[in-house]
Amino acid sequence: MKHSHDESARRVADELARRGLRLVLAESCTGGLISATLAQNPGISEFLCGSAVVYRNATKTAWLGVPADILEDSGYGPVSAQCAEAMARGALARTPEAMLALAITGHFGPNAPTELDGVVHIAIVPRSADASHGGKDVMHHRLLLTSNSSDPVQLRRERQSEAANEALRRLGQYLGAWTPE
Amino acid sequence: MKHSHDESARRVADELARRGLRLVLAESCTGGLISATLAQNPGISEFLCGSAVVYRNATKTAWLGVPADILEDSGYGPVSAQCAEAMARGALARTPEAMLALAITGHFGPNAPTELDGVVHIAIVPRSADASHGGKDVMHHRLLLTSNSSDPVQLRRERQSEAANEALRRLGQYLGAWTPE
Repeated sequence: MKHSHDESARRVADELARRGLRLVLAESCTGGLISATLAQNPGISEFLCGSAVVYRNATKTAWLGVPADILEDSGYGPVSAQCAEAMARGALARTPEAMLALAITGHFGPNAPTELDGVVHIAIVPRSADASHGGKDVMHHRLLLTSNSSDPVQLRRERQSEAANEALRRLGQYLGAWTPE
Repeated sequence: MKHSHDESARRVADELARRGLRLVLAESCTGGLISATLAQNPGISEFLCGSAVVYRNATKTAWLGVPADILEDSGYGPVSAQCAEAMARGALARTPEAMLALAITGHFGPNAPTELDGVVHIAIVPRSADASHGGKDVMHHRLLLTSNSSDPVQLRRERQSEAANEALRRLGQYLGAWTPE
């Protein structure tokens, strides 16, 4: 896992440098691991603006302006594509240097509701995907994590690693295929 | 290193729970690793508000209001006790739920100026340490990291881990000794 982590992070760092693109992250379930992994690459401070690790719902709203009606149980909830996209758009709005945002939110358990256990939503949003473009180039992924340790700390560690790795891998794919307008 | 990480993070999580305290982080050089390590503890979402990973100077200012005159070369610079404290105070100001902030900033190299190479500043600021209290209970640490790999990625990985571990260890000590007003 560690190795693929590093390779995916290296690819993202290389693609950002090749395109001269600055990235901002918004992380909930991964707790900052995507950012910490990317930050191991020398020179990344030119291309990684930062990561808003918004662990609690109140922080999602205070820092990124995620609407309460998305977060509420009566709405989509924090583990949803809608929340991931709102986090990404909030990060872009607060980071003028960034041209692209990736956001991730999920439930790692233990004690998650069955329908949310190990579920992760990722949204990738380029700055060009504003209302006038109709959301073109916005990418959503829903993951169901496979890690299933019976030890709760180990479970969270494995799921954190698996989710960060998948996010970096898909961001690398996105960057490799993306043609900015 | 991994093991002591985990132990320090567990102690911090336990102390936060015991005291019913919510923590906010502001990380530069560690890139989110302190937050990601803490987040491996089940139940931590009750006590960890989030982490503002402000990797670039522009993000330190945009997200946390760190004054440009601290960040400029003619000022203290981003690797300084003054920057760490400003990051912590900025995080507290933007996170109403948090009662305590830890901020960290440093230079991991490669190609750091000699006097900043491996230097890390940590600030721990409780909400009670506002102007009227004269900064009582604010804690500063300056670290000189010992990791010195010749491989630049490995160097950054080791320094990230060492800095995160030290920050968690000192936060655990602070919480163990602290008597909130």
